[in-house]
Amino acid sequence: MFMGASTKQGYDIANKSREIVRSLIKNDIGGLSPAEQDIVERIVHSTADPEYAKLVSISSDFVENSLKALKNNENILTDINMVKSGITQYEGNVDCYIKNQEVIDLAKNQKITRAAAAIQFAADNDFKGIIAVGNAPTALYKAIELYELGELDIASIVGVPVGFVGAADSKQALKSTSIPNIITEGPKGGTPVAVACVNSLIQTMKKD
Amino acid sequence: MFMGASTKQGYDIANKSREIVRSLIKNDIGGLSPAEQDIVERIVHSTADPEYAKLVSISSDFVENSLKALKNNENILTDINMVKSGITQYEGNVDCYIKNQEVIDLAKNQKITRAAAAIQFAADNDFKGIIAVGNAPTALYKAIELYELGELDIASIVGVPVGFVGAADSKQALKSTSIPNIITEGPKGGTPVAVACVNSLIQTMKKD
Repeated sequence: MFMGASTKQGYDIANKSREIVRSLIKNDIGGLSPAEQDIVERIVHSTADPEYAKLVSISSDFVENSLKALKNNENILTDINMVKSGITQYEGNVDCYIKNQEVIDLAKNQKITRAAAAIQFAADNDFKGIIAVGNAPTALYKAIELYELGELDIASIVGVPVGFVGAADSKQALKSTSIPNIITEGPKGGTPVAVACVNSLIQTMKKD
Repeated sequence: MFMGASTKQGYDIANKSREIVRSLIKNDIGGLSPAEQDIVERIVHSTADPEYAKLVSISSDFVENSLKALKNNENILTDINMVKSGITQYEGNVDCYIKNQEVIDLAKNQKITRAAAAIQFAADNDFKGIIAVGNAPTALYKAIELYELGELDIASIVGVPVGFVGAADSKQALKSTSIPNIITEGPKGGTPVAVACVNSLIQTMKKD
């Protein structure tokens, strides 16, 4: 299994695509470790947008902490189901609580978004692992808040929410914490970026 | 429900984002109908990438044929589960067969990708409706092939596969058919683009 390909035909396409991606971004990723390079290559592969090689910022402890969590089969928590459904090769749990009735009630009562309430719900239910935010800045802010209160056990955050309202600020807020993290600078990000990053880590973990 | 928002907080964010999107792309979408403008705005909203306003190409019969199919509760077929899981507000069926065992066997036997085999499987099982391809050029080529053989009853195709190998060519191939279609020119596209387009159509249908 390589980048979602499961037939020779799919593998050939993925392989050729990866070669093109490498040639497009090689000058941007020279300073990264092989595992970090793999993350960025997958992000560019899955978006066909080489600009991401300039937008990605990875904290120095991100890969190591993430791999450790994955090896321990810790949970992966996603903000939306689209991100969850892209993570298909992990032995551990991949959870998303945004449609959970308790989360819906919590959002109403606390006047917060469902995405934020879903993070609160995970914290209340002893979540431990990696958080992947591909959509909602409010989920990212809530994760940072609970981490700083000591109420959320986070190994790392894939913080790549997308949009023109709050996304860029939320990613800068994450970058300035001590949480091991990967972000994309500016408004761009989203489901394919979050999924590419998590799947890259899973494949690196399996190769180790 | 507006663009995935289900709380006042979520709605406010989505609304503000839409205003920003409109101001960024208004010069690119002036010639489009309101329903077409909504599609492009949602694509830019969900990717935070205004370049999409220049890349989207919509056939003149796309919106009308798509709305007719949605009103008749025809099926929506997606190439991958990530696209399927983003389409949450439709009363009819949203199907993806890529993990179906018969599809896996078909791919092996015919030496085609699973994504292409899944389209073949849908045709063999009397699919009728809209096809949304957010990932695999091979799925798009297979849909075009079966349509031209008269073996697949397609109302319209959302053809926005992503990648550096085959994606751009497959979209040009779709554009040159008589199938009502929307594409993005070049390598860019993907799950958020496909989902934004389908969800826009569903909301327009519900407003009608």
